[in-house]
Amino acid sequence: MSCDRCISNTSNRHTYAFCGADLHGGLLIFKPANMPQTYSYDAYTVSFPKDGVAVVEINRPEALNAFTETMIVDIGRIFEQLSTDSDCRAIVLTGAGDKAFTAGLDIKKANLAGSAEVVDPARKMISELRPMLMKLQNAVTQAEKSLKPVITVLHGYSFGMAIDLSTATDIRVCTEDVKLSVKEVDIGLAADVGSLSRLVKVVGSMSWVKDICFTARVFGAEEALKQGLVSAIYKNKKDALEGALRLAELIASKSPVAVQGSKELLNYSVDHSVEDGLRYTAAWNPGALQTTDIPLAVQGSLTRTKPRFEKL
Amino acid sequence: MSCDRCISNTSNRHTYAFCGADLHGGLLIFKPANMPQTYSYDAYTVSFPKDGVAVVEINRPEALNAFTETMIVDIGRIFEQLSTDSDCRAIVLTGAGDKAFTAGLDIKKANLAGSAEVVDPARKMISELRPMLMKLQNAVTQAEKSLKPVITVLHGYSFGMAIDLSTATDIRVCTEDVKLSVKEVDIGLAADVGSLSRLVKVVGSMSWVKDICFTARVFGAEEALKQGLVSAIYKNKKDALEGALRLAELIASKSPVAVQGSKELLNYSVDHSVEDGLRYTAAWNPGALQTTDIPLAVQGSLTRTKPRFEKL
Amino acid sequence: MSCDRCISNTSNRHTYAFCGADLHGGLLIFKPANMPQTYSYDAYTVSFPKDGVAVVEINRPEALNAFTETMIVDIGRIFEQLSTDSDCRAIVLTGAGDKAFTAGLDIKKANLAGSAEVVDPARKMISELRPMLMKLQNAVTQAEKSLKPVITVLHGYSFGMAIDLSTATDIRVCTEDVKLSVKEVDIGLAADVGSLSRLVKVVGSMSWVKDICFTARVFGAEEALKQGLVSAIYKNKKDALEGALRLAELIASKSPVAVQGSKELLNYSVDHSVEDGLRYTAAWNPGALQTTDIPLAVQGSLTRTKPRFEKL
Amino acid sequence: MSCDRCISNTSNRHTYAFCGADLHGGLLIFKPANMPQTYSYDAYTVSFPKDGVAVVEINRPEALNAFTETMIVDIGRIFEQLSTDSDCRAIVLTGAGDKAFTAGLDIKKANLAGSAEVVDPARKMISELRPMLMKLQNAVTQAEKSLKPVITVLHGYSFGMAIDLSTATDIRVCTEDVKLSVKEVDIGLAADVGSLSRLVKVVGSMSWVKDICFTARVFGAEEALKQGLVSAIYKNKKDALEGALRLAELIASKSPVAVQGSKELLNYSVDHSVEDGLRYTAAWNPGALQTTDIPLAVQGSLTRTKPRFEKL
Amino acid sequence: MSCDRCISNTSNRHTYAFCGADLHGGLLIFKPANMPQTYSYDAYTVSFPKDGVAVVEINRPEALNAFTETMIVDIGRIFEQLSTDSDCRAIVLTGAGDKAFTAGLDIKKANLAGSAEVVDPARKMISELRPMLMKLQNAVTQAEKSLKPVITVLHGYSFGMAIDLSTATDIRVCTEDVKLSVKEVDIGLAADVGSLSRLVKVVGSMSWVKDICFTARVFGAEEALKQGLVSAIYKNKKDALEGALRLAELIASKSPVAVQGSKELLNYSVDHSVEDGLRYTAAWNPGALQTTDIPLAVQGSLTRTKPRFEKL
Amino acid sequence: MSCDRCISNTSNRHTYAFCGADLHGGLLIFKPANMPQTYSYDAYTVSFPKDGVAVVEINRPEALNAFTETMIVDIGRIFEQLSTDSDCRAIVLTGAGDKAFTAGLDIKKANLAGSAEVVDPARKMISELRPMLMKLQNAVTQAEKSLKPVITVLHGYSFGMAIDLSTATDIRVCTEDVKLSVKEVDIGLAADVGSLSRLVKVVGSMSWVKDICFTARVFGAEEALKQGLVSAIYKNKKDALEGALRLAELIASKSPVAVQGSKELLNYSVDHSVEDGLRYTAAWNPGALQTTDIPLAVQGSLTRTKPRFEKL
Repeated sequence: MSCDRCISNTSNRHTYAFCGADLHGGLLIFKPANMPQTYSYDAYTVSFPKDGVAVVEINRPEALNAFTETMIVDIGRIFEQLSTDSDCRAIVLTGAGDKAFTAGLDIKKANLAGSAEVVDPARKMISELRPMLMKLQNAVTQAEKSLKPVITVLHGYSFGMAIDLSTATDIRVCTEDVKLSVKEVDIGLAADVGSLSRLVKVVGSMSWVKDICFTARVFGAEEALKQGLVSAIYKNKKDALEGALRLAELIASKSPVAVQGSKELLNYSVDHSVEDGLRYTAAWNPGALQTTDIPLAVQGSLTRTKPRFEKL
Repeated sequence: MSCDRCISNTSNRHTYAFCGADLHGGLLIFKPANMPQTYSYDAYTVSFPKDGVAVVEINRPEALNAFTETMIVDIGRIFEQLSTDSDCRAIVLTGAGDKAFTAGLDIKKANLAGSAEVVDPARKMISELRPMLMKLQNAVTQAEKSLKPVITVLHGYSFGMAIDLSTATDIRVCTEDVKLSVKEVDIGLAADVGSLSRLVKVVGSMSWVKDICFTARVFGAEEALKQGLVSAIYKNKKDALEGALRLAELIASKSPVAVQGSKELLNYSVDHSVEDGLRYTAAWNPGALQTTDIPLAVQGSLTRTKPRFEKL
Repeated sequence: MSCDRCISNTSNRHTYAFCGADLHGGLLIFKPANMPQTYSYDAYTVSFPKDGVAVVEINRPEALNAFTETMIVDIGRIFEQLSTDSDCRAIVLTGAGDKAFTAGLDIKKANLAGSAEVVDPARKMISELRPMLMKLQNAVTQAEKSLKPVITVLHGYSFGMAIDLSTATDIRVCTEDVKLSVKEVDIGLAADVGSLSRLVKVVGSMSWVKDICFTARVFGAEEALKQGLVSAIYKNKKDALEGALRLAELIASKSPVAVQGSKELLNYSVDHSVEDGLRYTAAWNPGALQTTDIPLAVQGSLTRTKPRFEKL
Repeated sequence: MSCDRCISNTSNRHTYAFCGADLHGGLLIFKPANMPQTYSYDAYTVSFPKDGVAVVEINRPEALNAFTETMIVDIGRIFEQLSTDSDCRAIVLTGAGDKAFTAGLDIKKANLAGSAEVVDPARKMISELRPMLMKLQNAVTQAEKSLKPVITVLHGYSFGMAIDLSTATDIRVCTEDVKLSVKEVDIGLAADVGSLSRLVKVVGSMSWVKDICFTARVFGAEEALKQGLVSAIYKNKKDALEGALRLAELIASKSPVAVQGSKELLNYSVDHSVEDGLRYTAAWNPGALQTTDIPLAVQGSLTRTKPRFEKL
Repeated sequence: MSCDRCISNTSNRHTYAFCGADLHGGLLIFKPANMPQTYSYDAYTVSFPKDGVAVVEINRPEALNAFTETMIVDIGRIFEQLSTDSDCRAIVLTGAGDKAFTAGLDIKKANLAGSAEVVDPARKMISELRPMLMKLQNAVTQAEKSLKPVITVLHGYSFGMAIDLSTATDIRVCTEDVKLSVKEVDIGLAADVGSLSRLVKVVGSMSWVKDICFTARVFGAEEALKQGLVSAIYKNKKDALEGALRLAELIASKSPVAVQGSKELLNYSVDHSVEDGLRYTAAWNPGALQTTDIPLAVQGSLTRTKPRFEKL
Repeated sequence: MSCDRCISNTSNRHTYAFCGADLHGGLLIFKPANMPQTYSYDAYTVSFPKDGVAVVEINRPEALNAFTETMIVDIGRIFEQLSTDSDCRAIVLTGAGDKAFTAGLDIKKANLAGSAEVVDPARKMISELRPMLMKLQNAVTQAEKSLKPVITVLHGYSFGMAIDLSTATDIRVCTEDVKLSVKEVDIGLAADVGSLSRLVKVVGSMSWVKDICFTARVFGAEEALKQGLVSAIYKNKKDALEGALRLAELIASKSPVAVQGSKELLNYSVDHSVEDGLRYTAAWNPGALQTTDIPLAVQGSLTRTKPRFEKL
């Protein structure tokens, strides 16, 4: 008798620590036992080249890594899965091939305006377009919701979805040859899966944000760095990926309690008042401060040795 | 060749209107073609006794309909599924048996404090308890997120999860014999899947809310009505269910564009300023006002005939 | 030479205290000199039956005081004008005739869905329906924005706009025969000029609010009182009007610095956190506390004589 | 050598567990060792008539318990001190004598408009009135900020400060003879130490709140109960105090982790969206759920015995 | 018989598409028929040098374009008028003459402290200064509220109102010789018609914002560019105006549905959380996505031809 | 008989202008008479080298100005005291010695994880760690709450608390040799006394903020300037201190009504919507505009003479 709840082959040896759900009717299960997870998605390659570092590669180079609906939903699932994979402490997001991180939405395959047979504009709005839009927004938001830091490497064509997706991640670096654009206006719509809501939070100059959003013009690495959209430029994709991996490795070597708390507190704070930010911190940290990582880290700091922090 | 994306048997005749995803690599698909959905869940019975009205029954009467983890996750899935089922325009939520809507969380099966082998309090907090809590919160929130109105019928024991769940629904009615309690304090915790965040929004008297939340005392139908927690009392469960069904039927007979818009605008407004509420309304309604339901309704109103509104 | 800026007949004697704008090119003018204002609107009668008390009567009884677009815009103008009329310290809003406060929007004359020749749904939304909706919302909001307290007397048919409008005022009283309804769902739309955004703020029971908004059912005086929508019931319209006038007179006899400050601080507080409410109060009151009304009032309180407060 | 940091007589035996600050230059000290605290304030009596229950009595009956500036500051200090006194789990607030909970601010002694020698209105506003107001607001807010639940017993004259103060507490009960009034308008000012910011949060009917705030009229027990301002009425002061003590004792017998968490989560939720409320709960509870009170409470619940929870 | 509602000469041929209001008592009128609007304001020149591009020139060079009260109110009216003028798709704001965009408020003509005869500081505050301030704020805010993008060209003296006004517009460019200053502190007041509320949103460095606001120091083009206040510098006014016109033309050539939606969504997002931003987008775009501009734009994109989008 | 309320030696001659509290039982006292205050703190030197300018020096150079708990609490008290000291109009914050502004928290003396004898993680969280954290947050926040502008001079090691503290001040300048780091992650915790909540408000690039917060890497002056964390770099500490003093003197020479209002309005605005920012401004400025500083400043501006503004 197999257990379909925890994907083990027998109901006696469960993958999840406290499973037995099918036998006993639904225990509260808190955490999977540590077993290597598998990542199998059509248009993505997920690898773990360094200890604690996952690399997610958009892998549809023949179409400049353009996104289909399935691909957007899938990348949300990948971030969700990595978020609870304790082998992963930091994530690098990149695109396969030399030409593009992503050319954006695959407009040849997209049906932006909904099905033809629904003629009532209100029904089309409420039962088709809004649910679809929320599904796509929700997928992109998984990058932000994950407690694991995500670093995006932008290279070549990085249009539309490239901005939507990368602004939902934590850190952006790019190559010298990157071609960036908030492209949506050029296909007749206001960007709606995140660029407009997040650009105003991740860079400082509103004049510049409106310039690039109203014109859909292509801009390059230097401008992106100067405006703070990216925090580093590398000569080429190879260097950028290596740089991002080093950064990810460095982050992965820190206490995950400290790093993941920092991400959550920063994300909360950018959307709330300072007063609320401090109050939320005072709810979060009194639990987190009880970690064994602190004495370990303090000891390391005093003895100038490098501590090794357990998985989270 | 079968199509696993849209659950049709052949790749030629897709269930979803614009599918063919597996053949062409991922079209943007907006809406399933209208086919009857099936609802098959261990501890729930979902039925459609009236046109457009779904009844969700918690069906574990042998345990006073107490909730296991699986059951909480499942009820979230049911609300999610009904939310996009165009045959459903209003939902009634009830519990099987005479004794209880639900006695609350099944504490014999719950492992509230997480797995024993994780000893670091911070790791337990971040990687076990918080993700579990968010999963349960998220399930309960599906009742609120669904655009379809949900009416809860509270009868008999209605403890803990009964309040968490019913305050996430739109309308609450009860029987004369109902026994209500925000029970969590009695098992040593602050209610955390919604009662505390929602009670302050759904009833007016903060003095009363704090009284019932700090003491976990049991209160009855009259008190619930007086304080506005429920909006009607019925003699017994049979009457209450009939009353709720009549209410659901009435709502289901109205324009779904109008009803679903009203729910979304009310839910948005309760959490935002009046100014923001009006601005959101001015983003929502200019699309919704283009519905064919308005001329239909106006015509009905002028001719005093009852219009029939299409599915949404 | 007449002065068209301050409506005086000559440019030598200006109506406004610091005018002379046309002669000198635009001084900062702060306040009109006290001269009786005139209120001349097609469908409204504005009178001052008591010292400091204005009565605004919706005056289209032949159509049950139903609102045309012009009438909505005009009532906004009336509230705006009264707001800066120092002869007015409190306002009573009522409807002419015995049958209705207002039957709501005049749907025979309304073109809810916009002009027929604009076919693009997005153009209709952005350039027609949204600006129109915002214009109407803005008119209704003037009742809320005015610092002068407004008391609404609801009698007879009080449908749709009756709720939109009265929830933007401060105090609601009604007659025994009042027939109230959030009627919009019955003409196929979600109420969009204020009812949904304000009902959740002015009454306590969300279950009841959703019941009346989803069903558009008619409810009476007792229910409105019990739920807190109105704060008093009177036997008939004559009594209600007299009661409202007495209340308005009482308010008008208090320090206008205190009353108008109270309205602004309550309106701010309902839309902000307690902490923000206190901070705003600490910005407002240190200016207002310097009023000569306080020593006058304290003196009156100590000597048990009734002070007379200057116009504001 | 005495230690002035921890109030011990010698520097060898410190009152605070980790003191020695004066010897070592400032350790991070987290918690006082458990020693009985003393409460000595001119106009207040603080007693502990029941285990875990503190009673704070405003004790200036010869002036109807009217508040001077010192008294307002002091009551803030009392709430602050009780908040960290682990012997206290619930607080009852009452006023000495039969005539009044408090007649409000002692206007004979108050200098509401600031010092006469400062003539610049802006200087008076910024350097006198605003700091004074914020000091008083801050004192009143201590009742809200304390994690310990506070129950106010309102009897006799309960004017002005009675509303400011009691709305900052959690639960309000009253006697049949109570005379309540938001009195500030009658002395020429908008209430500014909390009533206006909190009334809109603690009761449901905005129409009623504005009625009592604009008119300063006196209202009684039945009206207060009906509107939800109080949650119980008692025959007289003796009964009310006994009732409040029983309620406080009941609350004090529950897990303090559960009760104090509930207060914090309710206070946060009333000022934030449901979504934010859930997110804050998901930051707070994963630490609190690790308490030993839960197994203790669950065990008690299963064995139907009453657990005894440790001090917090 | 002329129609004074729609400014036509006869009541038979109305300027507005659905007028006839004076004959039938108030139809809901949604949109003026397309007729050229006229812009006639004393201190402004409004021209349309390019298709879809309006240029608003502050035209009081003899006083360095300093603002009188009338001028502030008028510029609000201009933005309001352009907002509904479908011939206008983008706006350039500039100042006449070589010396100044504007030297700020004309303090010789301003009566900042209100009328001398009102002596009560509270009355002066509530009935004079606050309404005046709100009127001026409201005028400036029209630039922000308009859905049409506004580009400001800053040159020469650009003090006080120059910052208030330009930060309410979308994009700022300047000349090499620009002299910028948040000048208000130098005339004894905190900037109150927008600079302080908007600077913190439009540039990133709070340290720099406070430096320029506390010192009122003059800064130049390079500093403004580096800090993101402007997004481009031009050699002189002629070049800057040409640059701004080219930018405006480019924006005007895009789909107005896309551009105007982008402005509204960016403005909403900067003031709300990411989550709220996405939710608002999901209310707005499902109406806007039904535009015929999208297939037109997609077609253009696929065929590499430039589409022409209809007026909005 | 001495007066313990106002620290005067006799009860006849009070230090505070309206004291006599001990004689009369508690007058509302608004403002101390102007007497020089004294600042005596173990680890700080407070001096007034220029008229109106206070310099606060962290004075524990032997430990690289590392902070103990006492020191954090004390710096809060200093800012609170300076906030009401009318001799102070601007504050410069610096650290003694050449090596460091501050090396951060003195981790040898800190007991970050609470007392060993409290074993229940929930009790440790609620009664130890959270109150301690809130005490420290509150101390740091005093820099922000003070109406007096604070300029921080960062030099040498500026780790951890250096960022927490300086981001709560208004303007940051630094030396060429500064070594900055959000160091907390390196000792196993998320920064919790302000850095994470304030960095997202004081600089523009979220990518950079997350980079420095996740890695705890050390960065220098150029990077801090480029990202907007500081607004000026000086060659060395001597120059930086002189530069900061000049800036402070300049600010101190302006109208304190204007400067302090600007700080409050900027701090409010960064945490609220533009709309709320304008509304708060319209509550604040109508009191402040009545200052005599405005005619003084306008006169100075017209006659090109430098006005001298009274203390606030």
